[in-house]
Amino acid sequence: MIVELSENAPAIDIQKLIERLKWAGLHVSFVQEGVYRRLAIIGKDIDLKYLANLPLVKKIVPSKQPYKLAGSDFKKERTVINVKGHSIGDGTLTVIAGPCSIESEEQIYACAKIVAENGAKILRGGAFKPRTSPYSFQGLGEEGLIFLQKAAAEYGLLTISEVMDTADIELLTQYADILQVGARNMQNFSLLKRLGQCKKPVFLKRGMSATYKDLLMAAEYILSSGNEQVILCERGIRTFEDYTRNTMDIAAIPILKELSHLPVFADPSHGTGLRNMVLPMSCAAVAAGADGLMIEVHPNPDKAYSDAEQTIGPEAFAILMKKVYSGIANVK
Amino acid sequence: MIVELSENAPAIDIQKLIERLKWAGLHVSFVQEGVYRRLAIIGKDIDLKYLANLPLVKKIVPSKQPYKLAGSDFKKERTVINVKGHSIGDGTLTVIAGPCSIESEEQIYACAKIVAENGAKILRGGAFKPRTSPYSFQGLGEEGLIFLQKAAAEYGLLTISEVMDTADIELLTQYADILQVGARNMQNFSLLKRLGQCKKPVFLKRGMSATYKDLLMAAEYILSSGNEQVILCERGIRTFEDYTRNTMDIAAIPILKELSHLPVFADPSHGTGLRNMVLPMSCAAVAAGADGLMIEVHPNPDKAYSDAEQTIGPEAFAILMKKVYSGIANVK
Amino acid sequence: MIVELSENAPAIDIQKLIERLKWAGLHVSFVQEGVYRRLAIIGKDIDLKYLANLPLVKKIVPSKQPYKLAGSDFKKERTVINVKGHSIGDGTLTVIAGPCSIESEEQIYACAKIVAENGAKILRGGAFKPRTSPYSFQGLGEEGLIFLQKAAAEYGLLTISEVMDTADIELLTQYADILQVGARNMQNFSLLKRLGQCKKPVFLKRGMSATYKDLLMAAEYILSSGNEQVILCERGIRTFEDYTRNTMDIAAIPILKELSHLPVFADPSHGTGLRNMVLPMSCAAVAAGADGLMIEVHPNPDKAYSDAEQTIGPEAFAILMKKVYSGIANVK
Amino acid sequence: MIVELSENAPAIDIQKLIERLKWAGLHVSFVQEGVYRRLAIIGKDIDLKYLANLPLVKKIVPSKQPYKLAGSDFKKERTVINVKGHSIGDGTLTVIAGPCSIESEEQIYACAKIVAENGAKILRGGAFKPRTSPYSFQGLGEEGLIFLQKAAAEYGLLTISEVMDTADIELLTQYADILQVGARNMQNFSLLKRLGQCKKPVFLKRGMSATYKDLLMAAEYILSSGNEQVILCERGIRTFEDYTRNTMDIAAIPILKELSHLPVFADPSHGTGLRNMVLPMSCAAVAAGADGLMIEVHPNPDKAYSDAEQTIGPEAFAILMKKVYSGIANVK
Repeated sequence: MIVELSENAPAIDIQKLIERLKWAGLHVSFVQEGVYRRLAIIGKDIDLKYLANLPLVKKIVPSKQPYKLAGSDFKKERTVINVKGHSIGDGTLTVIAGPCSIESEEQIYACAKIVAENGAKILRGGAFKPRTSPYSFQGLGEEGLIFLQKAAAEYGLLTISEVMDTADIELLTQYADILQVGARNMQNFSLLKRLGQCKKPVFLKRGMSATYKDLLMAAEYILSSGNEQVILCERGIRTFEDYTRNTMDIAAIPILKELSHLPVFADPSHGTGLRNMVLPMSCAAVAAGADGLMIEVHPNPDKAYSDAEQTIGPEAFAILMKKVYSGIANVK
Repeated sequence: MIVELSENAPAIDIQKLIERLKWAGLHVSFVQEGVYRRLAIIGKDIDLKYLANLPLVKKIVPSKQPYKLAGSDFKKERTVINVKGHSIGDGTLTVIAGPCSIESEEQIYACAKIVAENGAKILRGGAFKPRTSPYSFQGLGEEGLIFLQKAAAEYGLLTISEVMDTADIELLTQYADILQVGARNMQNFSLLKRLGQCKKPVFLKRGMSATYKDLLMAAEYILSSGNEQVILCERGIRTFEDYTRNTMDIAAIPILKELSHLPVFADPSHGTGLRNMVLPMSCAAVAAGADGLMIEVHPNPDKAYSDAEQTIGPEAFAILMKKVYSGIANVK
Repeated sequence: MIVELSENAPAIDIQKLIERLKWAGLHVSFVQEGVYRRLAIIGKDIDLKYLANLPLVKKIVPSKQPYKLAGSDFKKERTVINVKGHSIGDGTLTVIAGPCSIESEEQIYACAKIVAENGAKILRGGAFKPRTSPYSFQGLGEEGLIFLQKAAAEYGLLTISEVMDTADIELLTQYADILQVGARNMQNFSLLKRLGQCKKPVFLKRGMSATYKDLLMAAEYILSSGNEQVILCERGIRTFEDYTRNTMDIAAIPILKELSHLPVFADPSHGTGLRNMVLPMSCAAVAAGADGLMIEVHPNPDKAYSDAEQTIGPEAFAILMKKVYSGIANVK
Repeated sequence: MIVELSENAPAIDIQKLIERLKWAGLHVSFVQEGVYRRLAIIGKDIDLKYLANLPLVKKIVPSKQPYKLAGSDFKKERTVINVKGHSIGDGTLTVIAGPCSIESEEQIYACAKIVAENGAKILRGGAFKPRTSPYSFQGLGEEGLIFLQKAAAEYGLLTISEVMDTADIELLTQYADILQVGARNMQNFSLLKRLGQCKKPVFLKRGMSATYKDLLMAAEYILSSGNEQVILCERGIRTFEDYTRNTMDIAAIPILKELSHLPVFADPSHGTGLRNMVLPMSCAAVAAGADGLMIEVHPNPDKAYSDAEQTIGPEAFAILMKKVYSGIANVK
C-alpha cells in the first residue's frame, strides 16, 4: 500500500504514525521528493482502509506494483548513487570496464591503465568466478582482490567485484566499492537479504530467464532489507537463437526505467558473447537510455583466461568510449 | 561454392564457364564489385575441385555460409535497392510508416499526411491481415489497396503492403511498390519462390522463432528464384518475457549486416507491442546500424482496428522522426 | 457466445432462430450431444442479451474461450473422425508412419510394407517438402503422390501428405486421405481458410512458437470455414535447449484435450530430432493421453534424403508398436 | 581423460598410479564395474599421452563429455543411492510427496499420513522457501524441520528439504535425509561445492534456463567435491508458453539417463503449475523412464500457503499412486 501524505502534515505526526505501523508488525518505508512525501506500507493482511481518513493522509495511491520499494509508484525521482564522489544514475553515462577474471597483478594493472586512460571510472575484475565447469579457472580469491584494489588506487578508479556466497560478503566489502550479484545468483535470496544489510551499492544482474518482475523483486529483497543502493543490469536472456551467447533485451532498459527509479546498466559483452558486437550494442543500449555500461576489456583479449570471445582490446575500447560519449547528447 | 575469378579473365570465357555449369544442372550466380568478380555455384554434389586449376579462376573462397547468394562471402558490397528513385540501404535512414490496417479512404489519407509531413517516404497499410482469430477484422482487400495507392500518390509516397498468398501476388504488385512477407509467412516457401519471380522488392520479416540462419535461408529462396531486391526486418522474437509482445533482438541488426549484404530494417512497434517503447527502441535500432524503421502510426491510435496498443499518434511520430534523424550522424 | 437450448425446444423453432441470426450476419454453429443442444454465435458486436429470455434458450453458457468452435465449452463430446472406416480420436491409438519424403516408388512401397506389417493404419510421405534451404531436396511433387497412393492401396493403408500452398490443395485431395499442414504454415491463414472448404480431414501441426491458443485459433480458421475434421499435433517447440531439435511439450496433449474436443496427436520424431528418443517419447505421449502418433520410418534410415537423424528403421518401429499398444490400457 | 585399466593390472600398481597423478595436481576418480576398472583424470593441460603405453592401461576412452564424473563414458552402470535402506535408481519407482512449505506441526503430520498411506516413501517439506517476493511466507526455519522429522518418524518416512545457503547446510543435515537444491540455486556454485563435502544425497533440480549440459556440470561440482550421491530432477523450463507455469521437458528424462549414470526424477507439480496436469504428466514421466516423482500434496490444497494451484489433495494423490505403479511394468 502506498500512501501520499498531506503537504502540511507535521513531521512529528508522520513519525508517530510510522512507529505505530511498525509496532503492528508492518514494514514501512518513507520517501520525500520535494513537497511530496510518501509511505510504502507492506505486510500482513491488516485492514488499513481507515488510514484514508486520517488528516495526515492525502490519498491512498493505487498501485499494482508488487515491488513496492523498487517501483516508480512509490518513488518518482530517479535514484542517484554516490560512490566516493562518482554519481551513478544522474543522467550521465558511467562505464565499468575491466577483465572477466583477475589473472595476475600485472594483468589487472594493465587493464586499469586502459580503463583510466579512456575515461572510464570503475574497474571490474572477478576474484570468485561462477564457472559452468568445476575444472575451469575459479579465480584468485582474496589475492585477486588485493591486486584489484591496488591497481584501482594507482589509476584513481573505483572497483566492482562479484560476490557468490554470503560467507564472502565481508571479505568483498574490504576491497570492492560495489558488490556484483551475477545472473546465476539473481534469485539466491539468502545472498540478497544479506546484501541488504550491507552499506555498499549492489550491482544486480538479470538472471538468464528472469522476467522484469523477477529482477525487480530480487532488487526488492535488497531494498526491503535496508540497502537502497541497487543498480540493475541487463545482460542478455536465454532464447532459441544460438548465434549469440544470449539475446540482449534492449527494451529492458527503458522498461525498467519506467517501472522503477533504480539506475539501469547494460552488459553487451555477456549480452552478445561476440567481441565485434560490443560496440554496436553499446551504442544501442545508450540510445535506449542506459545509465551505464559494463564492458569486458583485456590488454590481450585472445589470452584472457575466461570469456575471451567477448572481450575487447585497448583499441576497440578506445573507439567505443569515443562513440558512446559523443553520441550521448542525441539519445537522452 | 564461391569462386573468385582472375582479374584478367575475359568476360566471354566467364560466360562460357557459366553456361557449362548451368548445363550441368548447377545454379550459378555472378557478381562484380570493382575489379572483383565472383561466382556462386550451387547444386548437386559434383566434384568441382578441378575449377581451382582453370586459368579463369583466381581462387576458391572458403565459405561456410549456406545462404550463398544472401551471404557476405559472395557479395561484399552492400545491396542498395532503388524504389522509384528512393534508395534503401545506401547508408541513409529510410522510415516506413502508416497504420496496421487500411480502415477507410479517410483514415489512410490522414495517415499519409502525417507520414509525409514528417519526412518519411514510404506508406504502409495492410489490406490482407494475418489475424490470429478468424473473427477479427481481416482487411479491406483490393478496395484497401486502391485507397493506399491513391493516398500515397496524393502525398508523394511509396507504398508497401503485405502479401499472404501466392494467389494474391499479382494483385498486390499492381498497387504496392514493395511487397511485405509477414513473420507468420517467413517460411511459406511457396510464397517465397513466387516472390522470387516478381520484379518488386520484398520486405521479409523475421519469423517469431526464426534464427538468423532461418531468415537468411528464407531470403535465399527469393534470391535464388531471381529477385535480388530483398530487405530483412527484425520485428521481435518469442521468449519467456511477456511484459512485451515480443523480445526485440537488436543484435540481429549488426549481425545480419555482417553475415549478409542485404539492407536490415527494424520494427519497434511489433518488436515491443508497447506504444511508449517505440521511441527508445527506434533510437536503439538506428544506433545499432539499422538501414530503416517500420513504424505503426495512426491519426487516432486508440481507435485503430488492430494493434492499437503499439501504434503511435502524430505528435509522437513527429518527435520520433526528429530524434532518429538528429542522432544518426553519431551512430553510423 | 454459447447458448444452451431448452430440452423441449422444437427443432423447427431452433432452425428459424439460426436462420434469423445468420440473416443478421452472424456466424452460427449448432451441436447436439445427447439431450444437449448448443449454439455458438459469433460475429459483430450485436447485443444478444435478449436471447436469454427466449423460451427456446435454457441458458447462456459463460465462456472465455476465443476458439468458439474448437473449444470444449461449445462441444463437450470428443470429436471422432472417420477416414474410410478408420476412427481417429475414439479412445484407441492411431499410428501414422512413413518416410519424411517420398523418394522413389520402391522406397515408399518398402515403407508401406513396414507400416502395414506392424499394424499401423496410415502412411505418411511428403511430396512437397518445406525445406529450410532452397537447395535441399524439395520433393517429387505429383509423381510422389501417385507412388504414395499406389503403395498405400497395395498394403491397405490410408494416406496423409503435406500441403504448402492453396494452389496445391486440389491436387493433394486426389491422392491423400488426410491433408497435413506443417508447423511453418500453421498461421498461413489463406491456406487454413481454403482447407476449411475442403472435405478431407486436416492434420494441423503446432507452429514452433505457437501457444496453445494460437494453435486452437488456427484450428478455428478451418472449423469456421466449414470443415469440422481437424486433428491437432504437438511436434515440439523452440526453446534454448539445443541438444534436441525441439523441446517436445508433452503437457500440450492433456491440456489441448481439456480445452478442445479435437483429437490430439504427437510427433516424437520432429519433437526430439533424435532417433533413440522416439521410443521413450512415444510412450510418454501415449501415457499423457495422445490419440495418435506420427512416426518417421524408413527401410534404411541412414540413407533417408531428409530428417535421417530422427528416422527409425523397421526393427525399432516394430518394438515401438508393441510397446505403445501393450501399454495403452494402463495410461488411458 | 578417461582411462580403461588392464584387467590383470594389480590393484597396488593402480593405487600407485593414482597417487602419482594426484601428486601432479590432477583430480583422479576411480570406478570399478565388474571386471572393468576406469580412471577419470581431470586437470591442468599436462600431456598424458604416455599413459597409453603403460602396461596398466588397456586404452584411453575417447570422450567428449565435459562432465567427466557424472557422464556415462566414465561410469556405465547406473548409480543406485541407498537412503536408510531405501534404494533410489534401482529400476523401481520412488515417489517423494508432501507440501510445498511446512506450515505447522498438524499440517505436516496430516501430509505424512497421506504420503505413507498411499505407499510413498519420502516426505518433502520446505522450511526455507525461495519466494520471488520478500513479503511472501519465507518458511518456518528450524522449527519446521523439527516438525518434518517428527512427522516422518511417526509414519516411517524418509525426509527431504531444500537448502538455500551454505550457512544452513549443517542445520539441514540434522533433520533431512536428502538435501534439495532448488532450480534458482542450480548454479550457486559455492553451495554445490559445500554439498560435495556432505555425506547426504543431494536432489538437484534443473534451473529454469539450464541446458542438459549445465545441469550435468552442476552435478559435476558436487561429484568432484567428493559426494557421489546426486539425484537429478526435471522440473520444467521457461518458454514462451504461459498457459503452464513452466514447460516440462519430458525428453530430459531419457536423455539425462543416456548421458549420465545418475538417477533422474520428475516434478510435474512445478513442471506444469496446474493441479489437474499432475496426473497425466506423472504418467508421461514414468513412461519416459523416470526413476522417481516429486509431487506436491496437501490435505487441503486450496489452503496451502504456497503453490496452491499446483498442489493436489489426498484423493488425487491416491489415484496417482495407483496409476503410476500399475503402469510401470509396461513402460520400463
